Amino acid sequence: MRSHPKMRDVPVGIDASGRRQEFDSMGTVDVPADRYWGAQTQRSLIHFSIGDDRMPKEVYHAYGYVKKAAALVNGAAGRLPGWKVRAIVRAAEETIDGALDDHFPLYVWQTGSGTQSNMNLNEVIANRASQLLDGALGTQEPVAPNDDVNMGQSSNDSFPTAMHLASVRMIDDHLLPQAEELATTIEAKADQWKEVVKIGRTHLEDAVPLTVGQEWSGYAAQLRACVQEIDHARQGLLELALGGTAVGTGLNAPKGFSHDVAARIAELTGIPFVTAPNKFMAQGSLDPMVRAHGALRGLAVALMKIANDMRWLASGPRTGFAELLLPQNEPGSSIMPGKVNPTQCEAIVMIAIQVLGDDTAVAFAGSQGNFELNAMRPLIINNFLHSARILADGMEKFRTFSVSGTELNRDKITQYVNESLMLVTALSPTIGYQNAAHIAESALANGQTLKEAALASGHVDEKTFDAVVDPLSMVGHGVSGA
Amino acid sequence: MRSHPKMRDVPVGIDASGRRQEFDSMGTVDVPADRYWGAQTQRSLIHFSIGDDRMPKEVYHAYGYVKKAAALVNGAAGRLPGWKVRAIVRAAEETIDGALDDHFPLYVWQTGSGTQSNMNLNEVIANRASQLLDGALGTQEPVAPNDDVNMGQSSNDSFPTAMHLASVRMIDDHLLPQAEELATTIEAKADQWKEVVKIGRTHLEDAVPLTVGQEWSGYAAQLRACVQEIDHARQGLLELALGGTAVGTGLNAPKGFSHDVAARIAELTGIPFVTAPNKFMAQGSLDPMVRAHGALRGLAVALMKIANDMRWLASGPRTGFAELLLPQNEPGSSIMPGKVNPTQCEAIVMIAIQVLGDDTAVAFAGSQGNFELNAMRPLIINNFLHSARILADGMEKFRTFSVSGTELNRDKITQYVNESLMLVTALSPTIGYQNAAHIAESALANGQTLKEAALASGHVDEKTFDAVVDPLSMVGHGVSGA
Amino acid sequence: MRSHPKMRDVPVGIDASGRRQEFDSMGTVDVPADRYWGAQTQRSLIHFSIGDDRMPKEVYHAYGYVKKAAALVNGAAGRLPGWKVRAIVRAAEETIDGALDDHFPLYVWQTGSGTQSNMNLNEVIANRASQLLDGALGTQEPVAPNDDVNMGQSSNDSFPTAMHLASVRMIDDHLLPQAEELATTIEAKADQWKEVVKIGRTHLEDAVPLTVGQEWSGYAAQLRACVQEIDHARQGLLELALGGTAVGTGLNAPKGFSHDVAARIAELTGIPFVTAPNKFMAQGSLDPMVRAHGALRGLAVALMKIANDMRWLASGPRTGFAELLLPQNEPGSSIMPGKVNPTQCEAIVMIAIQVLGDDTAVAFAGSQGNFELNAMRPLIINNFLHSARILADGMEKFRTFSVSGTELNRDKITQYVNESLMLVTALSPTIGYQNAAHIAESALANGQTLKEAALASGHVDEKTFDAVVDPLSMVGHGVSGA
Amino acid sequence: MRSHPKMRDVPVGIDASGRRQEFDSMGTVDVPADRYWGAQTQRSLIHFSIGDDRMPKEVYHAYGYVKKAAALVNGAAGRLPGWKVRAIVRAAEETIDGALDDHFPLYVWQTGSGTQSNMNLNEVIANRASQLLDGALGTQEPVAPNDDVNMGQSSNDSFPTAMHLASVRMIDDHLLPQAEELATTIEAKADQWKEVVKIGRTHLEDAVPLTVGQEWSGYAAQLRACVQEIDHARQGLLELALGGTAVGTGLNAPKGFSHDVAARIAELTGIPFVTAPNKFMAQGSLDPMVRAHGALRGLAVALMKIANDMRWLASGPRTGFAELLLPQNEPGSSIMPGKVNPTQCEAIVMIAIQVLGDDTAVAFAGSQGNFELNAMRPLIINNFLHSARILADGMEKFRTFSVSGTELNRDKITQYVNESLMLVTALSPTIGYQNAAHIAESALANGQTLKEAALASGHVDEKTFDAVVDPLSMVGHGVSGA
Repeated sequence: MRSHPKMRDVPVGIDASGRRQEFDSMGTVDVPADRYWGAQTQRSLIHFSIGDDRMPKEVYHAYGYVKKAAALVNGAAGRLPGWKVRAIVRAAEETIDGALDDHFPLYVWQTGSGTQSNMNLNEVIANRASQLLDGALGTQEPVAPNDDVNMGQSSNDSFPTAMHLASVRMIDDHLLPQAEELATTIEAKADQWKEVVKIGRTHLEDAVPLTVGQEWSGYAAQLRACVQEIDHARQGLLELALGGTAVGTGLNAPKGFSHDVAARIAELTGIPFVTAPNKFMAQGSLDPMVRAHGALRGLAVALMKIANDMRWLASGPRTGFAELLLPQNEPGSSIMPGKVNPTQCEAIVMIAIQVLGDDTAVAFAGSQGNFELNAMRPLIINNFLHSARILADGMEKFRTFSVSGTELNRDKITQYVNESLMLVTALSPTIGYQNAAHIAESALANGQTLKEAALASGHVDEKTFDAVVDPLSMVGHGVSGA
Repeated sequence: MRSHPKMRDVPVGIDASGRRQEFDSMGTVDVPADRYWGAQTQRSLIHFSIGDDRMPKEVYHAYGYVKKAAALVNGAAGRLPGWKVRAIVRAAEETIDGALDDHFPLYVWQTGSGTQSNMNLNEVIANRASQLLDGALGTQEPVAPNDDVNMGQSSNDSFPTAMHLASVRMIDDHLLPQAEELATTIEAKADQWKEVVKIGRTHLEDAVPLTVGQEWSGYAAQLRACVQEIDHARQGLLELALGGTAVGTGLNAPKGFSHDVAARIAELTGIPFVTAPNKFMAQGSLDPMVRAHGALRGLAVALMKIANDMRWLASGPRTGFAELLLPQNEPGSSIMPGKVNPTQCEAIVMIAIQVLGDDTAVAFAGSQGNFELNAMRPLIINNFLHSARILADGMEKFRTFSVSGTELNRDKITQYVNESLMLVTALSPTIGYQNAAHIAESALANGQTLKEAALASGHVDEKTFDAVVDPLSMVGHGVSGA
Repeated sequence: MRSHPKMRDVPVGIDASGRRQEFDSMGTVDVPADRYWGAQTQRSLIHFSIGDDRMPKEVYHAYGYVKKAAALVNGAAGRLPGWKVRAIVRAAEETIDGALDDHFPLYVWQTGSGTQSNMNLNEVIANRASQLLDGALGTQEPVAPNDDVNMGQSSNDSFPTAMHLASVRMIDDHLLPQAEELATTIEAKADQWKEVVKIGRTHLEDAVPLTVGQEWSGYAAQLRACVQEIDHARQGLLELALGGTAVGTGLNAPKGFSHDVAARIAELTGIPFVTAPNKFMAQGSLDPMVRAHGALRGLAVALMKIANDMRWLASGPRTGFAELLLPQNEPGSSIMPGKVNPTQCEAIVMIAIQVLGDDTAVAFAGSQGNFELNAMRPLIINNFLHSARILADGMEKFRTFSVSGTELNRDKITQYVNESLMLVTALSPTIGYQNAAHIAESALANGQTLKEAALASGHVDEKTFDAVVDPLSMVGHGVSGA
Repeated sequence: MRSHPKMRDVPVGIDASGRRQEFDSMGTVDVPADRYWGAQTQRSLIHFSIGDDRMPKEVYHAYGYVKKAAALVNGAAGRLPGWKVRAIVRAAEETIDGALDDHFPLYVWQTGSGTQSNMNLNEVIANRASQLLDGALGTQEPVAPNDDVNMGQSSNDSFPTAMHLASVRMIDDHLLPQAEELATTIEAKADQWKEVVKIGRTHLEDAVPLTVGQEWSGYAAQLRACVQEIDHARQGLLELALGGTAVGTGLNAPKGFSHDVAARIAELTGIPFVTAPNKFMAQGSLDPMVRAHGALRGLAVALMKIANDMRWLASGPRTGFAELLLPQNEPGSSIMPGKVNPTQCEAIVMIAIQVLGDDTAVAFAGSQGNFELNAMRPLIINNFLHSARILADGMEKFRTFSVSGTELNRDKITQYVNESLMLVTALSPTIGYQNAAHIAESALANGQTLKEAALASGHVDEKTFDAVVDPLSMVGHGVSGA
């Protein structure tokens, strides 16, 4: 047995300029000499330079785990020699770490399977591994993109695997922590303000009192439920297509490959990934991704309510609701001096709307699979990572620069409680709904306080009124109603 | 203590014609004399006769449980005398049974809280109960809509409660059974055809083989996952707002009311409803409804894939894929004699698209709550019940008239397997991807079979070819890939 | 030549009970004996009873014109004898008038071409015409549904023709008149209030003044632009597919048929319909319908802004903006006595959201054509007519019961003008933006009026302040800005 | 009168490192010393670094025209001295040319009015102009961002003006040319193939013949209609808000400013911009932008149909429709050698779906204006430019790499014509629909050709059959049907 190539410790980078020739099954293509990519990447660059949307780097980082795990499993099974495994693993780790980011230039709008990004990865890892093994770039020797790096895999199973990995990592590293921190911050506010009685509003109209803390407890409860739902949807992403290869049958992958690579990926990432029980669903549909984006949409819906409430309650300062005082982060107008606006809320509202739009695209795309492939993958992963990212970052800014520093305008809040007529509701059990209604109507028509109108009605005496119409006693206890 | 009114056994219906005067806090209104409804229902009819969309009857049936449970709890607490409770309960039961359907005429496009439908119910039950108790209609005596039927409730907590009830019942009685039956039918087909080898297709293009059974197992797996998700979303609907009253604090409801009415509703329906832990979320948002519609959307996405696959695979009979033979239910064309079309699939596709459109409306509406109320309730419940219903009915027809009777065109399927070039994939591990690619390209260019081109290439001998390129051995085992 | 059947003056209706046998190319089917429909209608009823969505009657009324025009043109060309023409024309006219509505029972969720509704019409008209000619129902004699009533037509060209007719009539008879009346009513309000100075708001925050009339002029301008856009989209609906027959080539229709039937339909309806210049587009796409729904969506977007503004400006009465006083149409709460809500605005907002959801479905469906047919027609026409109808009716109620009766709360409006700090903007040109900003900030921090803070700043004297900070002089002239 | 500062010819760039202090009305902020931006830009960077979405550079380039025009008009009116005008104009021109692109770092998710981007521009132009005039950066001397660069403007009127400019330029420079080139290319194909008879398909099922040229004429007609609609929507974008200032009244802008700046912008751009007739609509709504995106959506819908048809008709090569031969641009699979996929079509389909998703977001955002401002502007302009750009680029690639090189597989097309049974339709007028139907059914059931079955039926003799069933004579003439 001849000696195999030795791996050298070459830093990332190609010391060359101009162009280098690479080949694939269709022939040769010139590529930039200082890039690791090969013929198919270059073909994609030529044919698909559309807009500015590039395949997110998170996809490649995640894909690095796929390539590493596959190489390790193939090596363990004796299908790939150890020296190749080691070189591929090193290149895959560099991919994971972002060290090869500059070598993944492809656009989102490419082949619907993500094959071009898979080949980009195969080519870069093959060339990088070959470089480490002293091979000549452009020869596919000693490490070949299809036969070695892609061994036992197809884009059809590996790309959705990378989608799931990238999505779970985005959820774990960014989205859930930010959602939870925001919920915690809001819960602290709810606790802080749990005794401050304010006027409630339904249909935008004055209603009966509640405490500011109760109101904010509702926001927190919405967010906590969203966190649960995102976590639930995340479970669906833990199932990996890898091992289905081209159409789900596992052709050209050895028996047991599915379970072995999933286990290896779980080990490498520390995330409990498993192999998908049905590969035909896992490759023919993108249903778990659609559901996961649906969970983001749920968060967007909740955030919109919260941000809208905050900016309306902070409206003013002189001609609005003016119950809340938001932090003043920047001048609000180029023409109106001294104006300050609820800009963090506005950003959240816009982000929420964008996520709803993205969600429409994702669901539509999710419905457009045909036979053994849903060829809408780049669209879906791009929207998912985009939505998750702007939600996470948006919540962080919103929390830091708006929610945390929000204060109450207690004078205004008290004034509203004193002026409101809907406290009349507390009289209903005593004097009946119809009589109570006439008191409220009379007070409004005559510009009276509720008490004035109530006493004038003759339906209630002052002592009863004072005993019954007590805002503090009208807010109940806690957050679960009567 | 004076004797209370006795309940008489009067059948449903009012033997009167012309108009009757009813009143509310704003004054008197004439209503049709043969209807139980009162002033506020009539006001709504006048102000909101918009299109043909009526509040779904399922909402009133569900609301009947709310009114019945509230009366029982109020009675048990001594807030409502037993004779009133019994009359209200009977009218509520008639509501549940649909016997009063003709007395619920209101439109979907009304007040956003659903108050008008709540008042419709309060008025009808009050008048019906008063009739049973020998009271005069129009007097609100002896049973009053607000003070008695609506005791301890607000539209703000009772309407979303009715929404959840109606939705869960639609899920349990129609949607889930139909989804499960469809999945079961497809699983039977998958089992029946598990050995029939066919050509797979990715990107609509010829790919490597799988069995028809494997392909259909993917459809079934999608549906089973949808069933799970609908069931998961249904959990969120088990939490009821009732007991929050006007703004979530429970004003005018006695302590413990929330838990008691939820328990009573659970008992009456046999569905494990509980009281929502946070009433401010339960009334200020409609998040659980948005999520539940999201689960319907997930089903729509899956059904669209399945129906599309079926109609494409059945395309022809002479110039299409022609792998499937769908039942011929009706002539397909008014001008082309003998034409038969995949009409059940088309109906499913249209239903799926409609559900996605409805879903956009629901999510948008879900985001538009303000303060203590989301005033988009009629829209959301109408869309939910509509989507669930057309999905359920659509699946029933699709299963009965299309899936069950689908047969294979085995000649065509076999012909495709014999002609396809992508079996070359099996040669890759032996001769390498590039050589294999050139064989496929050559076969296509020269109109050869794969075997002819492979042998001509010199890369493989006949014995190896026959051993490796065996479609049956290329489909693996089962559905979980390699 | 034998004498032809004579037409009798038989009223609409079949004096029979039980079932009658009808046939089509697939065999015989029993239908209700008192209905005109035939075998294919009955097959559709069996196979497609899905939900409650029935093909809108407006489609059949419009289709009546198609059948009448085709019969007249076929008659004039000598392809159909005059006595058949006359009988078909009469039955078509009865269709147009709605006299046969009970005989069109089919569901929306049927074949995607609308063939089943076309056959429903062919069968009903054929049987009704045969009845008039003393033929026996069920024999297709003397008038046959396919060969006579459908002569020279296919569902593929006639159904989209009926869609366009029905849509244009809905636009002309309901949508545009209501949009224009609403715009006119708002313009009158704008004119009435053109001198009432109020505080403007941007970002929900206090801004510089404008007049109430200027604000409302913006609403009217939005609506007028929407009217123009609907009219523009309507132009696209004037082009008819009829004459393309099965795939657009016009097979089985005589030369000139396209132009002749379009001219005849134009004459019969008084609407300037023309034949579509490209029948392959007219049948393979539904682009003009998608565009027309897009115009409805534009109206929905504008209405949502207007209705939202109105309900926020009317919020209160004691703790909101309270600038507007909306008519009080009904009690607003089942629990809070005396509460009145902006229910007409809420209905408009819900309608607008529904139209946006419908719009998503329509656009999605519009993209799903294949080859010579877009098989999403029932979905699209159902959504279009639904959206147009609820918009039209909604605007009528909104105008009648909310806009017309809206009044100003002038005290509140004046108070806001007096209290607002953003009048400081007028000082900017005199003292610079930064100085002006510090004045506003100081006033807010110290609870001063703007004048107090301005004089305290030393940057401006009282005379200058009074001259410059004059709300009335800050609102400019008219509506076109500086 | 003292001499004014002289303008020096300083190249773009600041020769400094570290940080520089800038100020605004809220105080001082440190900014990177080598950047022109000031305090408010820096505040926005701190508060709004959300995701990777940056305000598109096209907005700033367009905004450069606004600032230039405003300076010229202010100068002509004597409000701004000539030396300031000249410096501002030069900096604005550098903005237009992209020379200052590195100084516009802000994110999309910022204040909803776009004020922060307006201030970014004001600060950069002020500092750049001050640099040219030998002022010290950070002093706002001699050119101040608010008082000079923003003179007579508000973000509220200038930002939507920049939106319209940027959008029209994107339409004119990219979108319409690409749409027209694609239409022209398709028209050439339609012309080239106008005599090639093929089998039509409706409901995916075999139908009667048409020519390939007729089929493609439908695609071209769709695109031409889309071009017209985009042009129509573009008209709405020609109306500019500038001159409305803060709330539409034009406060702090001199009389005539609206018309003068619009005229100046028209002159500078060569595009016939005019001032918007109603500034309250122009600032309180974004309706023209919503409509313009609706026109993009229309194009997306049409492109999806075309791209889907192409990829289905090219499916195969051995087991699909295989009528079209698309250019083979790249290997299609990482695992299946020799596989080639319709990747350009897939990219178009994904782009179309994304545009539909973006459209949902835009319409939603368009509905969310309040009072004198729609604070969803950054979202809307970002989506518009994104959609227009990916559509334009996508069409360019699609045309160049797929449509132009598409060829016909004439053997297959002819084979289908010979085998299809739907040619039976031509027999209907001779032998009746029912007889014709039975012939087709019989042929299918017995595996006969249509002719065999027709002759066997006894309804037609060979001579008649040959005369009537002639595919070439069945395709009619031209594209407008019979």
